[in-house]
Amino acid sequence: QTFAGNLAKKLDLMKILMENFQKLEDEEILSKSVKEFIGNILTCQDAKVVLVTSGGTTVPLEQNSVRHLDNFSTGGRGSKSAEEFLRIGYRVIFLHRKGALFPFARLLSNSEEVMQKLEVDSQGRITLEDEKIAKAVKEHKKLMKPLFFLSIPFTYLGEYLHKLQVICCALQPLRRRAMVFLAAAVSDFYVPYSKIPEHKMKSSEKLVLEFEQTPKMLNTIVDEWAPEALVVSFKLETDIEILIHKAKSALANYGHQVVVANLLQTKDETVSIVTSSAIFKINSTKNDPIENQILNQLQIMHNQFITQQ
Amino acid sequence: QTFAGNLAKKLDLMKILMENFQKLEDEEILSKSVKEFIGNILTCQDAKVVLVTSGGTTVPLEQNSVRHLDNFSTGGRGSKSAEEFLRIGYRVIFLHRKGALFPFARLLSNSEEVMQKLEVDSQGRITLEDEKIAKAVKEHKKLMKPLFFLSIPFTYLGEYLHKLQVICCALQPLRRRAMVFLAAAVSDFYVPYSKIPEHKMKSSEKLVLEFEQTPKMLNTIVDEWAPEALVVSFKLETDIEILIHKAKSALANYGHQVVVANLLQTKDETVSIVTSSAIFKINSTKNDPIENQILNQLQIMHNQFITQQ
Repeated sequence: QTFAGNLAKKLDLMKILMENFQKLEDEEILSKSVKEFIGNILTCQDAKVVLVTSGGTTVPLEQNSVRHLDNFSTGGRGSKSAEEFLRIGYRVIFLHRKGALFPFARLLSNSEEVMQKLEVDSQGRITLEDEKIAKAVKEHKKLMKPLFFLSIPFTYLGEYLHKLQVICCALQPLRRRAMVFLAAAVSDFYVPYSKIPEHKMKSSEKLVLEFEQTPKMLNTIVDEWAPEALVVSFKLETDIEILIHKAKSALANYGHQVVVANLLQTKDETVSIVTSSAIFKINSTKNDPIENQILNQLQIMHNQFITQQ
Repeated sequence: QTFAGNLAKKLDLMKILMENFQKLEDEEILSKSVKEFIGNILTCQDAKVVLVTSGGTTVPLEQNSVRHLDNFSTGGRGSKSAEEFLRIGYRVIFLHRKGALFPFARLLSNSEEVMQKLEVDSQGRITLEDEKIAKAVKEHKKLMKPLFFLSIPFTYLGEYLHKLQVICCALQPLRRRAMVFLAAAVSDFYVPYSKIPEHKMKSSEKLVLEFEQTPKMLNTIVDEWAPEALVVSFKLETDIEILIHKAKSALANYGHQVVVANLLQTKDETVSIVTSSAIFKINSTKNDPIENQILNQLQIMHNQFITQQ
């Protein structure tokens, strides 16, 4: 029955992927650019690569989508982590929610604040004085080179899952040198595309929406898509009591290596890195974002993981 | 029975406002800044003011909000309209979804694109060459002065409704010199705050969400909050057959003056401005965004409206 249950879940995942596949126009372009990026890494013996997913997925409630269910995520953790991965020498594939925070460019995300700082000089040239932004511009130029950084956007849940599959499968030749860092906030529920009304829903007295559970893709990543990669998932909860318990069960259920566990209320100050044999508690320091410390720990783990091969 | 029905709807609106009122920390600051802004306008005999609402509201599905129902809207129409209102001399109160497009600063909204254009010169000064942005920076400095532009952000539906009430009521002393331009995409459905679970919902087999209909506030604006203002609402549909019919019924039901009717598919190329006695069809031209032409028409209507006083 567990086998049948697993099969049913995989069928659900295949269905959602198939539905989306028919809508993807850039399938070939995506596949080609990912393969080129990975191909270049394969020629460098010690290069490591990380797939960072970032931002929240949306689930459309209409085909001409006006309304959708959204998962809150600014993309802060994913974009800061991608920056730090680049600094410590990783090649980064950044699968991110379109419009969410972007590495380095995140410092420009408040466009009104930036606008207020801009000046136009007598030659019509726009200038800006800001130390932090100047540092980010320099790092952006130095680190985000085509061989080191590949940007792939998504909006919808189905699109996210499809692109995740394409990228994970392309990582296979890199074996243990690949890390999958799943910081995106993926909706737990969705409405199958075939059940979505074509036109905007009418406002009636009450609205009752029936969502189906999003098929879990973590075990499919571990079993099929990227079986040799180091897979890091995130658990975000609002209740401390169930957080570590849930992290441990996730490791047991899906068979991946690391869960980064955090509470919504304190996620920028303290996180726990949970593996099947240990828990590393990490607190933020004054100067660095907490992402830098999480990545220090993950880098150590990844190096051990590669050596054990 | 219609009276009882209306009363019930007003009770719903009051309930949602009350719930939100208890959460608003900046109630006094909001009220004070709006009154100051309006007070300054009252001293200029011919000054006209417009309240522009812009962007989509969200409805939280959890108290520590991770998941929410969102209405798609970039805030393009609202932010471009606010710019043009400023150009033609209106004072503008911009009630907008936090993070949605902002007048002039909207040209910087793609932060990654902007980042790629930035250079750091030998003195550490950041420079940018872009004609359109340079023009926007100059207009921003010239037009968005404290006496002419007041920015008020919102995120949640209840917050939007509450702030809308505060601002509309503050417009009363301006009588017909005030316009209310409702370009925000307001959710038709919501979950009352008292029914929202405190913690993140558990992922069970199926999720069934029951939403209540958002109380209509248009008739309350017309009857109570800003009874003398020119009120402009928007209708966005995906089906051309029902669009004009819906626009006409809205005017009949709510008793306001203008509906700007558009189809999701063609909203940047063609709109209909619908009043109780006429329909003005407007098409975009090559050089200007369609918002400029909509506003030309509305300005004529507003001037007539003031003269008829």
